[in-house]
Amino acid sequence: MKSQSIQELLSGKNVLQEVTVFGWVKTFRSNRFIALNDGSTLNNIQCVVNFEDFEDELLKQISTGAALKVTGTLVESQGKGQSVEIQVKNVEVLGSADPETYPIQPKKHSLEFLREKAHLRIRTNTFSAVMRVRSALSFAIHQYFRENGFYYVHTPIVTGSDAEGAGEMFRVSTLDAKNPPLTETGEVDYKEDFFGKETNLTVSGQLEAEAYAMALGKVYTFGPTFRAENSNTSRHLAEFWMVEPEVAFNDLDANMDLSEDFIKNVIKYVLEHCQEDLQFLEQRLLDEEKSKPQAERSEMALIEKLKFVAENNFKRVTYTEAIDILKNCKPNKKKKFKYIIDEWGADLQSEHERYLVEKHFQCPVILFDYPAKIKAFYMRLNEDGKTVRAMDILFPGIGEIVGGSQREERLDVLKQKISELGIDEKELWWYLDLRKFGTAVHSGFGLGFERLVLFTTGMGNIRDVIPFPRTPQNAEF
Amino acid sequence: MKSQSIQELLSGKNVLQEVTVFGWVKTFRSNRFIALNDGSTLNNIQCVVNFEDFEDELLKQISTGAALKVTGTLVESQGKGQSVEIQVKNVEVLGSADPETYPIQPKKHSLEFLREKAHLRIRTNTFSAVMRVRSALSFAIHQYFRENGFYYVHTPIVTGSDAEGAGEMFRVSTLDAKNPPLTETGEVDYKEDFFGKETNLTVSGQLEAEAYAMALGKVYTFGPTFRAENSNTSRHLAEFWMVEPEVAFNDLDANMDLSEDFIKNVIKYVLEHCQEDLQFLEQRLLDEEKSKPQAERSEMALIEKLKFVAENNFKRVTYTEAIDILKNCKPNKKKKFKYIIDEWGADLQSEHERYLVEKHFQCPVILFDYPAKIKAFYMRLNEDGKTVRAMDILFPGIGEIVGGSQREERLDVLKQKISELGIDEKELWWYLDLRKFGTAVHSGFGLGFERLVLFTTGMGNIRDVIPFPRTPQNAEF
Repeated sequence: MKSQSIQELLSGKNVLQEVTVFGWVKTFRSNRFIALNDGSTLNNIQCVVNFEDFEDELLKQISTGAALKVTGTLVESQGKGQSVEIQVKNVEVLGSADPETYPIQPKKHSLEFLREKAHLRIRTNTFSAVMRVRSALSFAIHQYFRENGFYYVHTPIVTGSDAEGAGEMFRVSTLDAKNPPLTETGEVDYKEDFFGKETNLTVSGQLEAEAYAMALGKVYTFGPTFRAENSNTSRHLAEFWMVEPEVAFNDLDANMDLSEDFIKNVIKYVLEHCQEDLQFLEQRLLDEEKSKPQAERSEMALIEKLKFVAENNFKRVTYTEAIDILKNCKPNKKKKFKYIIDEWGADLQSEHERYLVEKHFQCPVILFDYPAKIKAFYMRLNEDGKTVRAMDILFPGIGEIVGGSQREERLDVLKQKISELGIDEKELWWYLDLRKFGTAVHSGFGLGFERLVLFTTGMGNIRDVIPFPRTPQNAEF
Repeated sequence: MKSQSIQELLSGKNVLQEVTVFGWVKTFRSNRFIALNDGSTLNNIQCVVNFEDFEDELLKQISTGAALKVTGTLVESQGKGQSVEIQVKNVEVLGSADPETYPIQPKKHSLEFLREKAHLRIRTNTFSAVMRVRSALSFAIHQYFRENGFYYVHTPIVTGSDAEGAGEMFRVSTLDAKNPPLTETGEVDYKEDFFGKETNLTVSGQLEAEAYAMALGKVYTFGPTFRAENSNTSRHLAEFWMVEPEVAFNDLDANMDLSEDFIKNVIKYVLEHCQEDLQFLEQRLLDEEKSKPQAERSEMALIEKLKFVAENNFKRVTYTEAIDILKNCKPNKKKKFKYIIDEWGADLQSEHERYLVEKHFQCPVILFDYPAKIKAFYMRLNEDGKTVRAMDILFPGIGEIVGGSQREERLDVLKQKISELGIDEKELWWYLDLRKFGTAVHSGFGLGFERLVLFTTGMGNIRDVIPFPRTPQNAEF
């Protein structure tokens, strides 16, 4: 007999049929009611055991975490809380879970405790809900781009280019770590390394995606990126997944339109397909916030917040307007900000972004036209000669979730920028080729996928929305 | 006016309307006919210019590779080869491409030449077709798993575990490369490294996927994996993408069923959605093979071959049966094989796999129940005590495209295997936990994504089916 997933069984189509189901015990009450879960859904199926019919030895092994094969008849439930249940005819314990040593007992565990058990935490409701939502978001991303004529490009992870400029990099090498070969001048001889040159883990697939956009038109990447930065915050990972669309012939306005439409659509997908998990995560967040003072609690419940983002326009504000708002706001005048904003050109810190999004506008904000000096070399210089066509999307509770720009398409302007920064043109020979041959306006952005998952699940720490987080001093599992 | 993609325009819905289109010049014939392409499809749109209406200076810039903005009226074509064309009112050259220096001229370039120009080769018909098919295959993979109740898991790229055992690894480090810190005993002190331990690039996400399968039931990974092996062949990359499903409660038979159904479905998706690109690639292969002796040409044309795989059962053969066939086959008896098969237990080489698939069975073959000694430690030992529940799928022209197994779910057997191999149990503490708590039968496999793209596109070298290939001595771009 073929087994069925618990999600299928709970749909109630097979009532009065004999069914076989595999899963893990969530709880076993009164030697009679097994709550069984197989990961296909947050919900358990209740398996009702006539304990008189089974050996004590067997019943004893039915404890939280044990893997079972259950056969019985699917019937409409007599109890509350479920529509159907299984009248058990046979139970086989595939693998027990000793209650004395199994860490995931049915009680409240701290998220910190569970982080040490990243291989088992997925067996809790919270993490299984988060990871199902994460999976749905991933699919929504691929589906959105596919339906909108984009091609998925796998840009390289190991890069020989050190001009990506987005952050500190990890070196990738097979040289002897203790006694690397040296050149005549006493430097490490990377000619003898695996790739014949110094290589690092990528910080962004953008430059390569640009090459593909300049032929396929609309492309996107969705892959891992890396930052070797010693940032021990709840919003930073050393290894994280990034989504980077890049579109030929799009200017900054079209880029903003795309990013907003994209985010709204993937959130709508999750609202539609992950209702049970989102309801659970909403309740989890409410419970967590009960212990916080009123002022620190979320203004909206999780699902309300997601609907708000999906249904309302993001506010578009120039950097110059934002600086005016910040210069004149209370926390700035009363010197409550750590970094006081006193003139145009200042880089915005997390406290400023949060003020704009959470206090002033109270909705997602797209800031654009930043000073050239605080942005990357490849961004399109505006006619004013001092701002670039950059944009950041700021989300409540998250801060920057998207960073993007129209790219500098003019060979001479780009060359001058590169030379001013002291970057060797040879490093970027192929990137410059894109401006030599058939150059055109084009734009793109990068979305930090884990920050989107954070926002969508209402979790508070980025370590809790990726299966096995990599952070300074931590690469367990 | 909003622009439209060439794919939309060619559908012919907007005839007699004024349209704007952006793209790159493929050819410009007789100072009159521009073949324009924007990457949305293999096909170009013909833009008809009345050269009397335009300046010579402008017309001169319309050469292969130039980026244009074209406005005009979409009309039914008077010429052969296309249904609609644009009667041009206005042309703007966004970026020219000097014919003297632009390498991608409309003539035949060797694949080797184009590999040196990986940032521009995507502008050729061959590479744009390959990469559109690659993108479609990626989507088909996500869609197949989503529709079948699987969750997508992002397993880590940087791993602290050196027990994955699938091959040589790349070290990831931020230590000073020339003068790394040393311990008292003179070894490199990885405690001072970014992650506080020695870390490498993953060779497989399987072990972590198993942890997730033992809670979510059905999961898959699709991400980059790495091998630091000096294999300069047409089938090996140092960085490649792998798909790794893992399913709780699946035995080896169910695993074989899944892998076969999965491959057939993604190939069907491409047959349905990439007809034009596949027809082009089929013709490319026919042209390429014209110069080969009859015996080396493909027996089936590309699309016929894909349909054959999608519609026919894979042949399932035990290792033991395969050895019998090989021992008694002509090339073995006549010592034509480099490695002669004379006894049970021999590891199969590429020449043997190809004989089985291409000569003996002439269809995809699933070999299973291999000798334990030639397979990985985590594979389920059969009751005979000498074979394991492993399976490999062999494809004509490609060789191994899938490797998988039922996993050893018994703690004691797994521990003994680990100890026999001299692996430290502490390295695998969390993997062993999966057998301590709620263990159950489970299975999975890994599919080399680039090999699937090779097979589907009919290309001959794996470097030509990934955007920026990484191989020994090569990490350009």
